[in-house]
Amino acid sequence: MNIAIVGLGNIGSFLYQYLKTNRLQIKKKTNVELNIVCVTAKNINKKRNFLINKSLWVNDYKDVIKRKDVDIVVELIGGSDGIAKKLVFEALKSKKHVVTANKALISKYGDQLAKIAEDNNVNLEFEAAVCGGVPIVRSLKESLIANSISKIYGIFNGTSNYILTLMDSEKISFETALNKAKKLGYAESSPASDLNGVDVSSKLQILTALSFNSFINSKQINIEGIKNIDQTDIINANQLGYKIKLLGVSEIINNKVIQRVHPSLVKKDSYIASISGVLNAVIIKSKPVGESVIQGEGAGAQATTSALVSDISSILRGNIKYPFALSEKERKIIAYDNIGNMNFSAYVRLDVIDKHGVLADITNFFAKNRVSIKRLIQNPFISKKYSSIVIITHNTKDSNLTKTINQLKKKKYILKIPKLIRIEK
Amino acid sequence: MNIAIVGLGNIGSFLYQYLKTNRLQIKKKTNVELNIVCVTAKNINKKRNFLINKSLWVNDYKDVIKRKDVDIVVELIGGSDGIAKKLVFEALKSKKHVVTANKALISKYGDQLAKIAEDNNVNLEFEAAVCGGVPIVRSLKESLIANSISKIYGIFNGTSNYILTLMDSEKISFETALNKAKKLGYAESSPASDLNGVDVSSKLQILTALSFNSFINSKQINIEGIKNIDQTDIINANQLGYKIKLLGVSEIINNKVIQRVHPSLVKKDSYIASISGVLNAVIIKSKPVGESVIQGEGAGAQATTSALVSDISSILRGNIKYPFALSEKERKIIAYDNIGNMNFSAYVRLDVIDKHGVLADITNFFAKNRVSIKRLIQNPFISKKYSSIVIITHNTKDSNLTKTINQLKKKKYILKIPKLIRIEK
Repeated sequence: MNIAIVGLGNIGSFLYQYLKTNRLQIKKKTNVELNIVCVTAKNINKKRNFLINKSLWVNDYKDVIKRKDVDIVVELIGGSDGIAKKLVFEALKSKKHVVTANKALISKYGDQLAKIAEDNNVNLEFEAAVCGGVPIVRSLKESLIANSISKIYGIFNGTSNYILTLMDSEKISFETALNKAKKLGYAESSPASDLNGVDVSSKLQILTALSFNSFINSKQINIEGIKNIDQTDIINANQLGYKIKLLGVSEIINNKVIQRVHPSLVKKDSYIASISGVLNAVIIKSKPVGESVIQGEGAGAQATTSALVSDISSILRGNIKYPFALSEKERKIIAYDNIGNMNFSAYVRLDVIDKHGVLADITNFFAKNRVSIKRLIQNPFISKKYSSIVIITHNTKDSNLTKTINQLKKKKYILKIPKLIRIEK
Repeated sequence: MNIAIVGLGNIGSFLYQYLKTNRLQIKKKTNVELNIVCVTAKNINKKRNFLINKSLWVNDYKDVIKRKDVDIVVELIGGSDGIAKKLVFEALKSKKHVVTANKALISKYGDQLAKIAEDNNVNLEFEAAVCGGVPIVRSLKESLIANSISKIYGIFNGTSNYILTLMDSEKISFETALNKAKKLGYAESSPASDLNGVDVSSKLQILTALSFNSFINSKQINIEGIKNIDQTDIINANQLGYKIKLLGVSEIINNKVIQRVHPSLVKKDSYIASISGVLNAVIIKSKPVGESVIQGEGAGAQATTSALVSDISSILRGNIKYPFALSEKERKIIAYDNIGNMNFSAYVRLDVIDKHGVLADITNFFAKNRVSIKRLIQNPFISKKYSSIVIITHNTKDSNLTKTINQLKKKKYILKIPKLIRIEK
């Protein structure tokens, strides 16, 4: 079979060299010879530290589509629209198998693309789009095929997790940790989507559709990132016996799916708290098998190549399957609910002007809003003019929690935007 | 496609009912209709708490082989020889796909069976034979296909791990923990192979062959179980910052594979120490992906059915593959080495008569054998006539360690067989 690689950045370059070096090994394992027949990239003339046979270069993605000898297209351009979108849509329509690492594209157009792949009897594989080297897509579609899933959650973003781990272990600020992550290549120069929860939300939407046999829902999903977590929160969490982790969670509650991405307090001795640095981990609760965990490297050219090659090999073996495990007509239109209807015990942090009556006003305000307080710690600042109040609430409807916090903002004695971090049960 | 189930014990019964109930769901996911066309079991007349259509019953395995309409045979008899062996050999020769949960059979005859499956272009699937619901076989053959593995290890036996966990958390003896495990169904009435390491060794041999593209080697493998671990060892380990776990480990050292099953001291804060109860966990070190972890339920009808159905579905999708990832002629005759040539720091426990000169004799004896002592703790028994000496050795060649311990046995002041538990780095 013949393959085309479109996009030769960090990942594309590593994949190209991997496929060249391991051609024989892949043939031994799949019984099929794999030839790279063309490559293209944004900047064809860029100097690369490896050789590409000149005859392989084509000018742009349209030339790849035109080529009748291309069986598999690997899309490594990135971005939900633009050339990546055109390439993948046209490749599938031209009855070419597609392998992609593009989570933005799949979370936005995955349903449409899956239908086209199905109609044309080709594979659309995207293991590399979700948690890099962690084989969660294949596990959901094949290894755990027998199971009915009730919850899937975990740590899906290495950059955020690295920053939170560093803030905790080295007692440094968010900014210092972010800069260190950038230096080590664990954060991109524009890491917005890693830090604001959007990257996790793309992955979670894809995992939700795979887990619950539903269509992708990008509208009903709560998305919060780690940008507002500071050193004080990390210290407070530690004192209370928790770590702060950015979780993606999708679960069925009262027959409805709830998708949510937000920082959570997780018990220090829990498995999820032990996932440190750039690692990713996915936990699946399902029947009949029970709880399964898959953990590994979530990003980087090496881990992503592992995922891409597993997808390519599956195609080589002729393992045709529906991109989202089920035929388009069998996928369910399942009901979704919003995080507001869930119940959480939460950590609330209020930095306030330390004057008479403030504490009473706050506790009264919580009582009025029917948010009952389980624990309250007031730490005066060194200046003593201000203090930080940490409240652990009892289990409360999430919409009540957020409403209460939003209204507190308006109080004159509140210095900073109040913090709400949910406690994961 | 048509399937036959041979063996209707705990697992077979659950699988039968699962396939009946989920027939439509399997069709939706694989696009193939699956019909149970015959079943047989040792005791056909046994009362079962579910109904089996009488027309499905056949007298014995030979009738299953004869049936031309059977495409897939599920072998759930167990045991490396006898009927299970005959059934699987004959089924593959009759060009029927085989799905089995039989680790004893696969670890003994896997290479021969794989060759027959390959020659007949049918699948031989055994996900359920290794760590129940943990999809390690499929992960090695498909998800991690791109990777070159250097080490695979983990906790592969739920019974042993449950007993060790209970001895630690409830401070109870081995016998009390074993009885509790039996009561809860976590240990069989004859749990010998779970406790003496043989069960783990079968799984490890299969994983070794899959990981290193080699043939199964059941000769060069160190096998020790947990039968000699007592409460004192658990307490000592805790005081030293360790937990005791029964590990299966297979790794490449100096281009040779070393397979070993034995109790190990693992650091309390390590991932592997956190695997408690009947859980199984497998850790894979490989390139390019790095370290991967898969964890889940290792045994029981539910978890095993999850694995069996993933294998069955793979066959339904026509995902033909070599049973051991590679064609028989491509599998490597790799060199194996013995544990004796490895180096370990170890925990040694000597229960001795507490008389003048004993300690000096022991330390001299260690020095003479070139086993250097890193740490020594002498705890007198309450009677004060006897004492327990715990030694942590420096890194030493394993054969030196075992030789030293074996020679110590002969000393008159030694009360019990000396203990040697290796410390896992």
